[in-house]
Amino acid sequence: MAVDRLENIVSLSKRRGFVFPSSEIYGGLRASWDYGPLGVELKNNVKRQWWKSMVMGREDVVGIDSSVILAREVWEASGHVATFSDPLTECTSCHKRYRADHLEEAYEAKHGKTPASLADVNCPACGNKGQFTTPKQFSGLLKTFLGPVEDESGLAYLRPETAQGIFINFDQVMTTSRKKPPFGIGQIGKSFRNEITPGNFIFRTREFEQMEMEFFVVPGTDEEWHQYWIDTRLAWYKDLGINPDRLRIYDHPKEKLSHYSKRTADIEYKFEFNGTEWGELEGIANRTDFDLKAHSAASGKDLSYFDQEKNERWTPFVIEPAAGVDRCTLTFMMDAYTEDEAPNAKGEMEKRAVMKFDHRLAPVKAAVLPLSRNADLSPKARDLAAQLRKNWNIDFDDSGAIGRRYRRQDEIGTPYCITIDFETLEDQAVTIRDRDTMAQERIGIDQVEAWLAPRLLGC
Amino acid sequence: MAVDRLENIVSLSKRRGFVFPSSEIYGGLRASWDYGPLGVELKNNVKRQWWKSMVMGREDVVGIDSSVILAREVWEASGHVATFSDPLTECTSCHKRYRADHLEEAYEAKHGKTPASLADVNCPACGNKGQFTTPKQFSGLLKTFLGPVEDESGLAYLRPETAQGIFINFDQVMTTSRKKPPFGIGQIGKSFRNEITPGNFIFRTREFEQMEMEFFVVPGTDEEWHQYWIDTRLAWYKDLGINPDRLRIYDHPKEKLSHYSKRTADIEYKFEFNGTEWGELEGIANRTDFDLKAHSAASGKDLSYFDQEKNERWTPFVIEPAAGVDRCTLTFMMDAYTEDEAPNAKGEMEKRAVMKFDHRLAPVKAAVLPLSRNADLSPKARDLAAQLRKNWNIDFDDSGAIGRRYRRQDEIGTPYCITIDFETLEDQAVTIRDRDTMAQERIGIDQVEAWLAPRLLGC
Repeated sequence: MAVDRLENIVSLSKRRGFVFPSSEIYGGLRASWDYGPLGVELKNNVKRQWWKSMVMGREDVVGIDSSVILAREVWEASGHVATFSDPLTECTSCHKRYRADHLEEAYEAKHGKTPASLADVNCPACGNKGQFTTPKQFSGLLKTFLGPVEDESGLAYLRPETAQGIFINFDQVMTTSRKKPPFGIGQIGKSFRNEITPGNFIFRTREFEQMEMEFFVVPGTDEEWHQYWIDTRLAWYKDLGINPDRLRIYDHPKEKLSHYSKRTADIEYKFEFNGTEWGELEGIANRTDFDLKAHSAASGKDLSYFDQEKNERWTPFVIEPAAGVDRCTLTFMMDAYTEDEAPNAKGEMEKRAVMKFDHRLAPVKAAVLPLSRNADLSPKARDLAAQLRKNWNIDFDDSGAIGRRYRRQDEIGTPYCITIDFETLEDQAVTIRDRDTMAQERIGIDQVEAWLAPRLLGC
Repeated sequence: MAVDRLENIVSLSKRRGFVFPSSEIYGGLRASWDYGPLGVELKNNVKRQWWKSMVMGREDVVGIDSSVILAREVWEASGHVATFSDPLTECTSCHKRYRADHLEEAYEAKHGKTPASLADVNCPACGNKGQFTTPKQFSGLLKTFLGPVEDESGLAYLRPETAQGIFINFDQVMTTSRKKPPFGIGQIGKSFRNEITPGNFIFRTREFEQMEMEFFVVPGTDEEWHQYWIDTRLAWYKDLGINPDRLRIYDHPKEKLSHYSKRTADIEYKFEFNGTEWGELEGIANRTDFDLKAHSAASGKDLSYFDQEKNERWTPFVIEPAAGVDRCTLTFMMDAYTEDEAPNAKGEMEKRAVMKFDHRLAPVKAAVLPLSRNADLSPKARDLAAQLRKNWNIDFDDSGAIGRRYRRQDEIGTPYCITIDFETLEDQAVTIRDRDTMAQERIGIDQVEAWLAPRLLGC
């Protein structure tokens, strides 16, 4: 069941044009993916909902868009050059590479305790026990070289997180936007990590997109704000239709916290990937004043805040809700995937696959379907589609039996199918079919836009 | 005048939070920029208008989002590894580096003819004549290394254009979206080029965002479609408010065309950068069947199209309108910048700077301003702002004299300022001020949303 769920999504993604294996005509690039016509709309909708909820819709948050390639000093001050690495080990039997911490976690999930050493662990690929090399620290930073000569002088890193771009702009943003703590700065953008073990479709990839918000608060109010953001982010997923039974909060044990963190809570989703039930969907960390202080010390630019009310100077604490766009998109797809039954042309019940996306996320909002490809019906349907397209992403489809076209729209999660039939030519009315209930309603063709508007509110 | 125009924009950008020099607290990264709270909204609006006009609003175009890092073979087949380079030269007097072709173009613009050799050219920095080294070809591709070992096996390139991600997905997209030529695939995303001479603010940078659309047509119809897209793209800029007198079409001379192009026309804008009047805003190329044939040959995957009507197989020709997000954003800012006069508190006319953005592009759609910071006015204004924020990006500002706050909103191009005054508490009405005419209108506070809706249509 669990594996089927992911496999269903991977296969549907390719068949319908959500997500394709990248560079496939050249044999593929391992664990790299391109978003197709439906995938890019779904992903854009996820990003738009996040931006509306986390940035544009709030008086206390503003947005930025900083560069992928920042000054090298940024990554030295943040600690990434020194410590952003994973323990790499290789099975000497089958030469497959692993992250040692992942092997330990999998052992713990199975046996209920951590292994004394890697010597107790079986290789997940070949099954041989304890054939692992001593783990070596392996940097997750991807390098590039700017300028004409490929040497140390031009060395630069591709950002492994968007957060640092926020910290180094903190002072300029606060001043120009006339904000003061508590306030936040949000950003959506690509990050790059040299992952040892990318995998599980778009769950873990070397190139990925983040939605991060750094919320700057008065020291001492940080724990309260942390809880506020955990609750707010959990509510966001539920509001967009994720099954609450498949969501939970996981608090990182103190001894496993990142060097900058006082407390980190993950929102986990029940992905049921091979071997592990739950996986991280979003991390919400109390980063304390670590980053601002680190950049103040390294750059010489004072990033503290002068509190006029209290007449004192302090460095804000930072609460960071950090979500992955690709991981969110995968979660919304996995959670929306439903199998039920629908009548076929003969009225017999048959299995139906339907993506029950929240309307705000559905890549196509409505499909306009002439009952058959016909010199009268098709142009009328095309006109309606063109009219609706001014507001929403609309599909037009006139090929094949109407039942098959419904199935196709169900499978990509289109909330409404609008059918133009021969009666339409007489009564100027169309049939609108609901994706979830399959109920049909007949309304005037000139009423369609007004009928859809309240149903697609917030899209 | 010309230089002032760009300098005004750079200074306003920093002061108001459109665009900041990147990594400034570390002394800056040459010619790299971060978008602040207003810049990111403006840029997102530019992208949204492009997507609506070029992808979502058209039946014959679909979108994708391909990876920045594609298989290496993609760049070998496309010709980028072999030929994507610029002629680098250095002045031996002052050691400043140049692109030889840029030096020649500047000479031609000044003297009306190409120089016989670089020996005739003065260094723009130190003024010495003909002190240039022999130009060397310098690759514009930025490299990175994937995987644990930094050698040839992990070598990858950051894409220098988004277009190739479209060509390699052409067949999958066509099949899954049930399209056939003529149809297009559009994409917005970051690209990276190792520019020798980045400069002119966000006009030329090493990291930039593109909006590219590849339109696949029947061979023989390519010239007509090419003209269609030149006209359509020019109309897009005019529709979004760019002064037509500052736009022109420049046809590349045959001998300077890229290796893949049959004809390329640029939409140029009168930037009036130091030394050159016009600059490329968008390039619209007839790429012929070069790319699809090159990838067919290199990958062994047949990317031709079987035309059932004609019962024949052919490779589509490609028309490519390719715009830069950053360059567009700069153009919209430069073109919107206006100086006129407005009355000050004493009723005297004073100079006013105003960004006359089209409403669809304005980063803030309306500002809600309580006449003074007050226990009655401020909460009422905050409530109104919160209500409007569900639909639009709304500013709230209660600090300083009202005239100064109007000036601030004018300078960032906010179309409407909504003032809550003491009378509001009596008559439940507010004053709405128009950015361009400065005319004021008084309407009921419960009518504001309905008043704004038609005026912000398409935002």
